[in-house]
Amino acid sequence: MQTEIIIIGNELISGKTRDLNGWYASGCLLSHGLEVSEIRTVGDNYNTLSSVLKAAIKRSNFIIITGGLGPTEDDLTTEIVSKALNRPLLLDQTVLNHIKEYTKKFGLTWSPSLEKLAWLPRGAKILDPKREMCGFSLSEGDSLLYFLPGVPEQMRELMNRAVIPDILRRYRPATVPQHRILKVYGLSESRISDVFKGLSNELKRVMFGFYPSFPENHITITVRGKEDAEIESELNRAEKKINNLLGPYIFASGDKTMESIVGELLKERKMTVSVAESCTGGLIGHRLTTISGSSLYFERGLIVYSNRSKVEMLGVMQQTIDSYGAVSDQTVREMAEGVKKIAKTDLGLAVTGIAGPLGESEDKPVGTVFIGLSADGKIFSAQYRFSGDRDKVKLNTSEMALDWVRRYLNGYPFIPGI
Amino acid sequence: MQTEIIIIGNELISGKTRDLNGWYASGCLLSHGLEVSEIRTVGDNYNTLSSVLKAAIKRSNFIIITGGLGPTEDDLTTEIVSKALNRPLLLDQTVLNHIKEYTKKFGLTWSPSLEKLAWLPRGAKILDPKREMCGFSLSEGDSLLYFLPGVPEQMRELMNRAVIPDILRRYRPATVPQHRILKVYGLSESRISDVFKGLSNELKRVMFGFYPSFPENHITITVRGKEDAEIESELNRAEKKINNLLGPYIFASGDKTMESIVGELLKERKMTVSVAESCTGGLIGHRLTTISGSSLYFERGLIVYSNRSKVEMLGVMQQTIDSYGAVSDQTVREMAEGVKKIAKTDLGLAVTGIAGPLGESEDKPVGTVFIGLSADGKIFSAQYRFSGDRDKVKLNTSEMALDWVRRYLNGYPFIPGI
Repeated sequence: MQTEIIIIGNELISGKTRDLNGWYASGCLLSHGLEVSEIRTVGDNYNTLSSVLKAAIKRSNFIIITGGLGPTEDDLTTEIVSKALNRPLLLDQTVLNHIKEYTKKFGLTWSPSLEKLAWLPRGAKILDPKREMCGFSLSEGDSLLYFLPGVPEQMRELMNRAVIPDILRRYRPATVPQHRILKVYGLSESRISDVFKGLSNELKRVMFGFYPSFPENHITITVRGKEDAEIESELNRAEKKINNLLGPYIFASGDKTMESIVGELLKERKMTVSVAESCTGGLIGHRLTTISGSSLYFERGLIVYSNRSKVEMLGVMQQTIDSYGAVSDQTVREMAEGVKKIAKTDLGLAVTGIAGPLGESEDKPVGTVFIGLSADGKIFSAQYRFSGDRDKVKLNTSEMALDWVRRYLNGYPFIPGI
Repeated sequence: MQTEIIIIGNELISGKTRDLNGWYASGCLLSHGLEVSEIRTVGDNYNTLSSVLKAAIKRSNFIIITGGLGPTEDDLTTEIVSKALNRPLLLDQTVLNHIKEYTKKFGLTWSPSLEKLAWLPRGAKILDPKREMCGFSLSEGDSLLYFLPGVPEQMRELMNRAVIPDILRRYRPATVPQHRILKVYGLSESRISDVFKGLSNELKRVMFGFYPSFPENHITITVRGKEDAEIESELNRAEKKINNLLGPYIFASGDKTMESIVGELLKERKMTVSVAESCTGGLIGHRLTTISGSSLYFERGLIVYSNRSKVEMLGVMQQTIDSYGAVSDQTVREMAEGVKKIAKTDLGLAVTGIAGPLGESEDKPVGTVFIGLSADGKIFSAQYRFSGDRDKVKLNTSEMALDWVRRYLNGYPFIPGI
């Protein structure tokens, strides 16, 4: 039983847009036990697409195709399919009426380019019974082809609501792989790799994967089997062993993120945090507030970008900045203390640094960052040196700052500075 | 002359990681006149990869292959290539020495898994003369194969420094396409499409592409030709026409972003801005400070997540919050005025809203957002209703707020609220 994915769009083979659909569809299929053999990305081009379609029909049972179904002139999928598979386009009156109703209902202007969405290749079966999204399936030889829109939200909804149930009605995978993701911060990929050398021999049924996801490294552990309980216990055994090896460097598993873990810990302890950000410019606050319900523990954040704002709002002494600089251990300590006091929170977190490419000095090169945490009457601080461009320095700084909160609340030592 | 790209990695066909390299390589090749026919993404799997390699060698002259060259156990590319193309792996002593020197130089621990990087298929030519990155080329029949690491930074550097020059030494494209990107905010894709209906007939040499990039829509205009001046004038003509049609909805072109445009405008006018953010939680500050040199115009930001912080730091009246709520026109106006006054900036920008999924009330559903701007003794405000999940509401709110600054400084009307 073979499954493949075809992604259509000139924008995707010309560097204009990054694909989201192949990534999503493959994950979705795998989680139901269907391994994807390959993802082919091609342009809105008759010759390429028709030969890719024909090759897919020869070897694969389920073929997911996304893109090129929209109303604009460069959306050519139905036309190409019609020619390549010799199925004339027919006007589907029901679909046309639905589109008209839909535009009326949402107060959208009717536009002639929308009619195109109702012309479908002969034999097409509409995937969305509510007909608010385009997308259809075709049966050709031993293959089932599912054509989905390129708009990620619509593609995902149809994938989950129509395609997966349709496939599972026809084919039930004998074994389903289950995997877990463990997320690591503060160790390099080759350090992790060395740690894992022995483990693969010990855990023969487990497949390991290592994926850098800056500034984190993600480890996946996969087990295939027939019985959930048996897979579960094998995964547990592996996770436990990895936890023993990497300890506090593992900050999360699954869908959890550094900010969601920090949020959970704060909620659990009924503690609040406030943030004083210089070089990150609001990124720490932004990350903390991506979590719904973060208002329970995130009280406020001060983006003290200018020196004046550090003095006026946090009570950092002008003298401290004059003597040591805005990027210094002394300043970050006063920032952390200041924000905790003003916000009356349990924790006060502060960062200051040189994100670059401008602003470096001889003793403080780009990537120099200080982190400070005020908590329980103590102030902690350390200096780091992050590599990479401005975006990376900002991201790494926000990650390290959040990791400080996580480690503090768990009683782990901080990742050492320089 | 055909070019294709092969991306290798189990993580990429199982939904674990989104590819960055196919996207980058195709853009890079196209900008030098080399159109990519397709991007194939496959796992670290002998059967699939060897048949994909052989098919590519049959039809393409230049083949870019990325991934699977690292030190971990799941990196299998050189082994697979060795078997598929019948070229034994040989230990390259020079490469080995370089790796050893490199780890010494940067104080990294030598790890045995690094030796693997020095075993290369017979005939491999190293791409990086400094040998700090793995990557090699192979000549096979009429094809040239370039094997690059999967780590995006290394892949990009080798692509630009080694692969592109090597290809251009062998083949000079007769025509080079030039394209421009125009970025639109505030118009739907189908509205844009209708506007463009007539234009395609008028500008026959121009190819248009339409790419949603939430919350923006991007339009690309592409012209192929032999002479730069001629292409240039055709692009100018098209850009002018589009500008006439879409006017202030076009906020940027090329690599510029909403935040970089806002930054340029502020710098030009020698004006400063401060921000009071509630629902965006720091995202506006983060976006403004992704621009190097933003300290010239971004003074500070207040992430006033709690009601208390709105009152204490911005001088919003408790009575205003009690009577109208924290998410209200009255509150956002006081926020905008308050932050401008405290920060002593030319502009004070404020947002408050319900990002969801929690916190909605009957008259204020999720996505309800108020934006306020205090400038030149006036306060502007409006209510919007954004759709989508928490991340989308935050992103759209930050975009609209930045667009307000852009439109205000250009003398354009704001996008109307509800």
